[in-house]
Amino acid sequence: MIDKTRFIQDCEALRAQSPLVHNITNYVAMNIAANVLLAAGASPLMSFCPEEMDEIVKISSALVINIGCLDMQEIAGMRLAAAAALKYGKPWVLDPVGAGASTLRTETALELVREYHPTIIRGNASEIMCLAGLAIKSRGVDSSASTSDAVEAAKALAKETGAVVSVSGAVDYVTDGERLESVANGSPLMGRVTAMGCSASALTGAFAAVDSDAFSAALNTMVMMGVAGDIAAEGTAGTGTFQLRFLDALTTFDAAAASERIRQA
Amino acid sequence: MIDKTRFIQDCEALRAQSPLVHNITNYVAMNIAANVLLAAGASPLMSFCPEEMDEIVKISSALVINIGCLDMQEIAGMRLAAAAALKYGKPWVLDPVGAGASTLRTETALELVREYHPTIIRGNASEIMCLAGLAIKSRGVDSSASTSDAVEAAKALAKETGAVVSVSGAVDYVTDGERLESVANGSPLMGRVTAMGCSASALTGAFAAVDSDAFSAALNTMVMMGVAGDIAAEGTAGTGTFQLRFLDALTTFDAAAASERIRQA
Amino acid sequence: MIDKTRFIQDCEALRAQSPLVHNITNYVAMNIAANVLLAAGASPLMSFCPEEMDEIVKISSALVINIGCLDMQEIAGMRLAAAAALKYGKPWVLDPVGAGASTLRTETALELVREYHPTIIRGNASEIMCLAGLAIKSRGVDSSASTSDAVEAAKALAKETGAVVSVSGAVDYVTDGERLESVANGSPLMGRVTAMGCSASALTGAFAAVDSDAFSAALNTMVMMGVAGDIAAEGTAGTGTFQLRFLDALTTFDAAAASERIRQA
Repeated sequence: MIDKTRFIQDCEALRAQSPLVHNITNYVAMNIAANVLLAAGASPLMSFCPEEMDEIVKISSALVINIGCLDMQEIAGMRLAAAAALKYGKPWVLDPVGAGASTLRTETALELVREYHPTIIRGNASEIMCLAGLAIKSRGVDSSASTSDAVEAAKALAKETGAVVSVSGAVDYVTDGERLESVANGSPLMGRVTAMGCSASALTGAFAAVDSDAFSAALNTMVMMGVAGDIAAEGTAGTGTFQLRFLDALTTFDAAAASERIRQA
Repeated sequence: MIDKTRFIQDCEALRAQSPLVHNITNYVAMNIAANVLLAAGASPLMSFCPEEMDEIVKISSALVINIGCLDMQEIAGMRLAAAAALKYGKPWVLDPVGAGASTLRTETALELVREYHPTIIRGNASEIMCLAGLAIKSRGVDSSASTSDAVEAAKALAKETGAVVSVSGAVDYVTDGERLESVANGSPLMGRVTAMGCSASALTGAFAAVDSDAFSAALNTMVMMGVAGDIAAEGTAGTGTFQLRFLDALTTFDAAAASERIRQA
Repeated sequence: MIDKTRFIQDCEALRAQSPLVHNITNYVAMNIAANVLLAAGASPLMSFCPEEMDEIVKISSALVINIGCLDMQEIAGMRLAAAAALKYGKPWVLDPVGAGASTLRTETALELVREYHPTIIRGNASEIMCLAGLAIKSRGVDSSASTSDAVEAAKALAKETGAVVSVSGAVDYVTDGERLESVANGSPLMGRVTAMGCSASALTGAFAAVDSDAFSAALNTMVMMGVAGDIAAEGTAGTGTFQLRFLDALTTFDAAAASERIRQA
């Protein structure tokens, strides 16, 4: 059962506190992730420069690391940022984009998990199963597995790492190893718009900045994403219109009304 | 004459096979090119990291290299990716953005053509004339020549390199040195939206993944772009609305209906 | 008093001359800044590669440097570009994104001001106050101060550096140290869409390319941004629709009609 009251409180806290969320993310997602954060009420900052990582993490309320477009300098920035998040006690979210698709992606994601203990790991089924050590064959950056296949992997990964694990797909699952909740809201159009997963990770950072229970933060993020996706998909089959309406739905988000639309698997 | 049956088959194959298309492209185009690929039915992957080039090319069905925002590391990634495409027998598309505007762009494009033999070269008239060695003066990244000026250059470039050459403009021309076809669909608004050419290159990679005749793949791409542009431009004078409607037109693309709208010069 | 005739002349010159504007800008802003330039009538070029900086600046009509996503190579490119702008006598605009948020940003902005004398400095209140040496606490990349607080700082900065200073916010102020004008057009939605400030800086470069009076160029840019923002915000509360309508408003901009909508503080 999703706690509707807490969902509404989190949404309101997001608008009231407008947390500064620091993102090290890929070039495909930067613009839309920033716009998703702004529409939901948060304040985005994008930086990967090693020379300013410590200062930027220090003034931010949460950190999001997304390995979508890696290069060696960016990986160096990620390590410094994650270390700073630990030092300053900031929640941080890892999005292991394409883990399983290349050795570099898998090893970078695993290193960040092992060395810097993310608060929340948020990915698609393929990525989560890869990190959990299951033998799966990743196909690019889009998932080749369904989220229900990934539930046991997500639980195991959460228990092993201490992170909350959030798996997005047709049904989203969030677990801390003990608790498990699903969100069945959302539209198939979300899989045909790039960087929706990256945007979910960015927003997870914003919720983690205002809700100290990482499980609740990760879960309420997926509720907001899913209900906004439902609203955006109404009456359209096109991904252009969907994207526009998704941002509009976040800008004018009514958390109380949204809480009545929650569907679970 | 454009083969309508083959055009329809290619469009259907794109949706059925959803080929993974690996793009090394510029930061302006990354998001929109990914969304164009997704809307048309393909699966995009953006990566330029030298350390994973071989693995990523190996799992992809086609490679697209776009030199819009160069840096030395990215050029290194391009060389490795193009070499891997040759090694694994994957079709690859070169978009020589801004060739003629700087020595670095011209030389990088020429080196990639000479050393790594692209399957298809797709650019605007200025870029194609530059690569063909004609004395033209490029003005930034937008074309300062009309496509009809570039037809002979395109034919010569195709004969010299063995690549199919696709020139976009008010009228698009595609040639393999022997065959030559034109596509007159599309809207002047396409020249007032950034990265439409880059998106055409990305989509050319997707078609090349599902049609082993590179001439046909390059041509059918420009038909899809042009007809989607026609549909998107109907009833709007604004580039914001145009962009949204262009993605919608691709998402809901009806290849049979589109085949009846083809116009040639 | 804003000179309406000059505003209309500048807007017409922008469409007639379509100046090539070279941007070194951040990854969040690249796509939207390019689309804003195209919609307004200019021709954008984005490049930060040190190896081509001199050639690109030479063929461009204006340069815009935005420090939104720094790395050391990009800073090297910025220095070369700014030096080339001085050498070739091209107007150039500095957007000191996030000055005050990290030592690297503040020092990079100050170095560019001191060593390369920007024609126009365009930022939000926090950034301008930081450069003017006032003790303010920056909060990320969004302003934590109102523009009226920044008026004296802007005047002082203009006098000290010889640059025109353009401060954007609920009310925009433009000053050359002697002259001071305000623009009160625009919508609160502009603060909830990413890269609107970066787009204003890019457009300031375009106006500076067609109006040799940098004060007038900077001011008329903010009029165009503000009126287009007014038009875009009519009847919408969502940032998705706002962005689309903002580009549409620029594409179909009627300068004479806009000049009747100017509001000042």
